[in-house]
Amino acid sequence: MARILVINPNSSTAVTAQIDTAIGTLHRDGGPSIDVLGLADGPPGIQSQVHVESVVQPLLRCVREEPADAYVIACFSDPGLHAAREIARAPVFGIAECAVFSALQRGSRFGVIAILNNSIPRHLRYFGAMGVMSRFAGDRAIGMGVAELADEHKTFERMRKAAIDLRDIDGADVLIMGCAGMAQQRQRLADDVGLPVIEPTQAAVSAAIGALTLGW
Amino acid sequence: MARILVINPNSSTAVTAQIDTAIGTLHRDGGPSIDVLGLADGPPGIQSQVHVESVVQPLLRCVREEPADAYVIACFSDPGLHAAREIARAPVFGIAECAVFSALQRGSRFGVIAILNNSIPRHLRYFGAMGVMSRFAGDRAIGMGVAELADEHKTFERMRKAAIDLRDIDGADVLIMGCAGMAQQRQRLADDVGLPVIEPTQAAVSAAIGALTLGW
Amino acid sequence: MARILVINPNSSTAVTAQIDTAIGTLHRDGGPSIDVLGLADGPPGIQSQVHVESVVQPLLRCVREEPADAYVIACFSDPGLHAAREIARAPVFGIAECAVFSALQRGSRFGVIAILNNSIPRHLRYFGAMGVMSRFAGDRAIGMGVAELADEHKTFERMRKAAIDLRDIDGADVLIMGCAGMAQQRQRLADDVGLPVIEPTQAAVSAAIGALTLGW
Amino acid sequence: MARILVINPNSSTAVTAQIDTAIGTLHRDGGPSIDVLGLADGPPGIQSQVHVESVVQPLLRCVREEPADAYVIACFSDPGLHAAREIARAPVFGIAECAVFSALQRGSRFGVIAILNNSIPRHLRYFGAMGVMSRFAGDRAIGMGVAELADEHKTFERMRKAAIDLRDIDGADVLIMGCAGMAQQRQRLADDVGLPVIEPTQAAVSAAIGALTLGW
Amino acid sequence: MARILVINPNSSTAVTAQIDTAIGTLHRDGGPSIDVLGLADGPPGIQSQVHVESVVQPLLRCVREEPADAYVIACFSDPGLHAAREIARAPVFGIAECAVFSALQRGSRFGVIAILNNSIPRHLRYFGAMGVMSRFAGDRAIGMGVAELADEHKTFERMRKAAIDLRDIDGADVLIMGCAGMAQQRQRLADDVGLPVIEPTQAAVSAAIGALTLGW
Amino acid sequence: MARILVINPNSSTAVTAQIDTAIGTLHRDGGPSIDVLGLADGPPGIQSQVHVESVVQPLLRCVREEPADAYVIACFSDPGLHAAREIARAPVFGIAECAVFSALQRGSRFGVIAILNNSIPRHLRYFGAMGVMSRFAGDRAIGMGVAELADEHKTFERMRKAAIDLRDIDGADVLIMGCAGMAQQRQRLADDVGLPVIEPTQAAVSAAIGALTLGW
Repeated sequence: MARILVINPNSSTAVTAQIDTAIGTLHRDGGPSIDVLGLADGPPGIQSQVHVESVVQPLLRCVREEPADAYVIACFSDPGLHAAREIARAPVFGIAECAVFSALQRGSRFGVIAILNNSIPRHLRYFGAMGVMSRFAGDRAIGMGVAELADEHKTFERMRKAAIDLRDIDGADVLIMGCAGMAQQRQRLADDVGLPVIEPTQAAVSAAIGALTLGW
Repeated sequence: MARILVINPNSSTAVTAQIDTAIGTLHRDGGPSIDVLGLADGPPGIQSQVHVESVVQPLLRCVREEPADAYVIACFSDPGLHAAREIARAPVFGIAECAVFSALQRGSRFGVIAILNNSIPRHLRYFGAMGVMSRFAGDRAIGMGVAELADEHKTFERMRKAAIDLRDIDGADVLIMGCAGMAQQRQRLADDVGLPVIEPTQAAVSAAIGALTLGW
Repeated sequence: MARILVINPNSSTAVTAQIDTAIGTLHRDGGPSIDVLGLADGPPGIQSQVHVESVVQPLLRCVREEPADAYVIACFSDPGLHAAREIARAPVFGIAECAVFSALQRGSRFGVIAILNNSIPRHLRYFGAMGVMSRFAGDRAIGMGVAELADEHKTFERMRKAAIDLRDIDGADVLIMGCAGMAQQRQRLADDVGLPVIEPTQAAVSAAIGALTLGW
Repeated sequence: MARILVINPNSSTAVTAQIDTAIGTLHRDGGPSIDVLGLADGPPGIQSQVHVESVVQPLLRCVREEPADAYVIACFSDPGLHAAREIARAPVFGIAECAVFSALQRGSRFGVIAILNNSIPRHLRYFGAMGVMSRFAGDRAIGMGVAELADEHKTFERMRKAAIDLRDIDGADVLIMGCAGMAQQRQRLADDVGLPVIEPTQAAVSAAIGALTLGW
Repeated sequence: MARILVINPNSSTAVTAQIDTAIGTLHRDGGPSIDVLGLADGPPGIQSQVHVESVVQPLLRCVREEPADAYVIACFSDPGLHAAREIARAPVFGIAECAVFSALQRGSRFGVIAILNNSIPRHLRYFGAMGVMSRFAGDRAIGMGVAELADEHKTFERMRKAAIDLRDIDGADVLIMGCAGMAQQRQRLADDVGLPVIEPTQAAVSAAIGALTLGW
Repeated sequence: MARILVINPNSSTAVTAQIDTAIGTLHRDGGPSIDVLGLADGPPGIQSQVHVESVVQPLLRCVREEPADAYVIACFSDPGLHAAREIARAPVFGIAECAVFSALQRGSRFGVIAILNNSIPRHLRYFGAMGVMSRFAGDRAIGMGVAELADEHKTFERMRKAAIDLRDIDGADVLIMGCAGMAQQRQRLADDVGLPVIEPTQAAVSAAIGALTLGW
């Protein structure tokens, strides 16, 4: 049976569990197993470029040691994505990359809900590298670290505010959740602001299943 | 049971059959049915902007009349895509859009194998609309109409020549087949030129399955 | 005597009449005749991508059947423009394309006054296809359908509000009327907000006259 | 009677005469007078950025002193265009700007035939300032100074070579003559290479007539 | 001993003196002499495209007549930069070009503090020519002419307001002073708004010293 | 006395020595000390994304442990640049970033001489992140690993071939050496192909000296 390995490069078991829940509907009988793994030696949340860099080696080690038919890197900074592609004998998906390209099929300009303000320059460099800046509407932070996302009420209120500003001031017509730990709010947010909302781990695991099925 | 409707907007039963074959591995027990439909009143092949426009109304009629949980428009010009999105109560995927965004996850610059030279300006307008021109390497035609693709040997030789020029002159490191009727050559071409090759109907049906599974 | 055929692809005789008025100053003795034709079977206004697609075939039929030395497609979505160019033995001008390129000669960043919010993604795709997004300032809707434009007072107040926001928030220094039925307000709006305002049918008919004169 | 003043900022009477011929079909009874003026104190040809700068003051003086209802700056570097717009009480057109925007309505990627290799970086800066680089195919020089253009045979052969390379290697489907003194070869070149060819002084004077007629 | 010549193309001795102060820390024993020269026949401040053009000839004359090992053009419109490069036997630096490329190493999106609103389209053309618009955040004017900059208190308050709007509304994370006469406020402004602030004459003279030292 | 620390993140003492030589002219009495440090535990050459990632942690450790007033990361992939900026209390310069922005002041389109073909996609992602793709001419590899660069004759011949193709086929008018170990060939190559050639460690150390002097 084929195996998809989803690597949450932070050490938060809450985030790992949430990713597991988020991709629940993607499991199916006879389909690939989808295992979500946290990195015990990762930081509790990836909130800076230093954090991003700190998880690359453990993550690559995981790719080297854990056999899989497809890998998903479940952090919105896609740490180590291109290096993982060099060493893996299987396709590797980054959740940010998948999320952006999914969003571009659902709207004309995408907006991103970031956790912290200092994530935004990091996102911009990455969207620039992807070559999609002409369809970028905006990136707004909710000002909460990964650990704080456990407060669902506060998280939702902040995300709602960011989403409305992205829609009404920046002109976004599709939204991307800029963190792997926001999945449980996806549907509610989409309903609330009336725009499609892309949850990045769902986008990436779904792409991984497709690639496996096609043998790409 | 969910249903994905793949609409081949030309009237070539050979192309319809080939699409059906191309997506064979995407069928699975308990999964959505995937029906491929040709448009009897479409042109034998879509080889001009006039052809593109001529299939939009039949195609939209088909979307209106045929119930489905996801639609795939199986022509590389994505005719009527945005109108279909307005009228369908289900997600609609264009094979060109899906192919481009899949390719951008597998290489840094994409090259396109077109059927005819006059397809190229049409493609360029569309890639411009997608906002991906900074990652475009080139678009080269094999100089064969849709009907001629049945000559597999000649088709392969022409595709191989275009692929090599895209790789060696234009700098492409991932290729896209710019027509729904080229699928059977995908693996052979990829092996031959040593680059990933994206077959657009496979990319789009796979994306449709993902969207259905996620309930997006 | 040469003939320019201006095709208003909606069925609103009010809009057709307004276009006729808008281009009044372009008639001259010994010059080409300029005939404005509405499409009786078009929608009352083109307010969605479905509307855009619905007029393409009647419009192309008109281009095929009506002899002319130049054609102007008088809807800001330029429906069927590239197909018309394939079939016509004469040059074909789209009012949106002409308006944008005229605007780029009168300001550094262009703003667009749309009729409805759902026009904006359609416009953005088109500006992307034109490759001019780096000079795009903004697109703001007045929230009125084509039929409602007859209420001149309300139309002007809404346009004025959009224009001021385009100028003061988005940084536009030239404005484009994003609909064929706004011509009568052009001068007043320009005077009011102190920016050049491009009326698209005037821009396109003027370009058509030039092309005819040059024999291009 | 309205007056359009076309300023050839070089001192070559041959070029001035050629411009006069090029725009011959644009004269009409009752229409604006179109006067072509050379700058006696300009260089024989504008072949460097130093030449470009050297003509700006005489050109602005001319705009200040010569009353007109529209001005055309007839050098492909559009020297002094934006300054002239500040001081003139009438619209001012640059032939390069007009040529590029005309070309973008006739093809998907434009190619430019330059006189000398050192013109190309100057052109690129300008196309960048216009924001049209995503539609730029190539710029190839014929390696002849303005004075040498009098040798029609040699000029044509060199232009033909450049045009074919722009079409076949660079992918241009519309060409622009990158100098005011090439007009007489336009039709022949277009026929020979099978692409539309834009002559910039014709494009600009035609735009000026349109603006005058509309009162813009 | 090597010599760097900094040319302030306006006639304001206050600005010339301020530039001299701004670059004070760049002088060193045994290093190149750095001479700042005003143009007596320049305008008091360069506040329009006409002003820009008016200083090009005197500036080029100065480059021709004054021997130096590197030249710096100390006006934020970089007047005559590319012509100066043609004639000088030494490298020539424009303060705007140097400032922009310095800023792009200190932040993800740059904001510019202009003197007057009419400077902004001029800046935009130039940033477009540089090809950096995808990293442009905004350009906001303080509404004061060069002469008025002597009022330090008012200047600072206006600059502070523009800087805060660039940061909070436009998303800039690095700022550029868009005029050669703002240097004395650099540190204070940076401290006040918490962003790096690039002073363009400092950026350019520093680049000139580097080029001299390397023999480039 | 101020100190600039140049970190060569590979373990090749030959490359470290060559960098030391390359920046020789930048030392001066009373100026900052410029220390070049190799990373003993780095790979012999950085020739893949895996190599890039492998040096980030040792490099950041070095930044944390070695006090300096400015840091230069002397590998053309700028490994860890943005993370280093987060942790250093001093400015950090990447040689690729500095090289590109220096090149853009010396030509209109830059060409890059890479060591290996697989470096090119990595470069493209980075140039995309910098937002400079509209001024990118081409990137051509010499097909030699870092260790092989010691063969100066072969290196020069390969670089010369790449440089000529970048100039004559891709249209580059300024070249960048895409590796820290090519410095000794800079002048000879520039003379040979008649274009400015940017050596990245020189560009970066020079920028670091400037920043130190200015106190930025």
